[in-house]
Amino acid sequence: MKLLEDRIRRDGKIFEGDVLKVDSFVNHQIDVGFISELGKEFYRLFGDCGINKILTIEASGIGIACLVAAHFNVPVVFAKKSKSINISADVYSSKVESYTHGKTYDVIVSREFLGKGDKVLIIDDFLAKGSALKGLISLAKDAGAEVVGAGIIIEKAYQGGGDYIRNEMGVRVESLARVASMSVAGGVVFCD
Amino acid sequence: MKLLEDRIRRDGKIFEGDVLKVDSFVNHQIDVGFISELGKEFYRLFGDCGINKILTIEASGIGIACLVAAHFNVPVVFAKKSKSINISADVYSSKVESYTHGKTYDVIVSREFLGKGDKVLIIDDFLAKGSALKGLISLAKDAGAEVVGAGIIIEKAYQGGGDYIRNEMGVRVESLARVASMSVAGGVVFCD
Repeated sequence: MKLLEDRIRRDGKIFEGDVLKVDSFVNHQIDVGFISELGKEFYRLFGDCGINKILTIEASGIGIACLVAAHFNVPVVFAKKSKSINISADVYSSKVESYTHGKTYDVIVSREFLGKGDKVLIIDDFLAKGSALKGLISLAKDAGAEVVGAGIIIEKAYQGGGDYIRNEMGVRVESLARVASMSVAGGVVFCD
Repeated sequence: MKLLEDRIRRDGKIFEGDVLKVDSFVNHQIDVGFISELGKEFYRLFGDCGINKILTIEASGIGIACLVAAHFNVPVVFAKKSKSINISADVYSSKVESYTHGKTYDVIVSREFLGKGDKVLIIDDFLAKGSALKGLISLAKDAGAEVVGAGIIIEKAYQGGGDYIRNEMGVRVESLARVASMSVAGGVVFCD
């Protein structure tokens, strides 16, 4: 999506250690009008799929998911990160590895809010190795929900998570910007 | 606000230990259309105050703040919870006590996203003793921003945090539902 690629080129910041910061408009300060435009694009892509619920993960997914959901006119459910060892029987849970923070945590969703008959679109800001997305897919499937697809703002395509989920797990993944490579010196190169 | 009070009476759940759960429409599953209606009410209350930024705190404030901000056409900045002992020089920080989780944590906002000239509306889901709100007000003032007011969905008025912030700190606080008392047996009683 050109609008997004241009914005990443303009306002994204690259740091050593494979870090692309977009915290001026995506995940610390949120440019609400801009993210709503991305929501419109997700609706163009998934609007005819019968989606009745949007699933995301705290914290940075929540705002984006809400602005996307406004176009679909459906509720958002956000998975919570939990450090508790005992997972209650009232929730579905899944393990997610955070490469940024170097640890594994459980994500949980109350059984009340996800179940059979739900047609779910998963929304998140980033997709790299795909650990969070795999966790959410697994959790939704445990709940008996159908995962219609995933809508991602920025995919680091060179990390392979997106293609694994598309090809090995058979889940439709639509990323509005796909990064082919990036470096502090050379900036961001998008796929295609 | 009658719409909200009716919804709390219908879908809110009271548990021992002074717990009012509204996670079916506010802070786990988010009823996006309904929260957007609350956003319209906040815009009616604060729309003529020259607000250029909405400030909230992760995680449950973020979705609400984004849906409110869509009416104001301004960006959201969300304060992040941090457990790190060393707070970087690039951020404003403040301490917040969580009574629910029984611990104190730092909340931080990057200096890039808050500063002199900003007229800020703080948005959050709950106000009880007011620790999170006091922390956000203090952080915004450190940044040199003007706190125009705070918009809260549910205030537990009997805990006194809201009145302290109104009367002792001189900040305008508008809560769409003010709980006078509640109990498992008696349900929720609203103020007025």
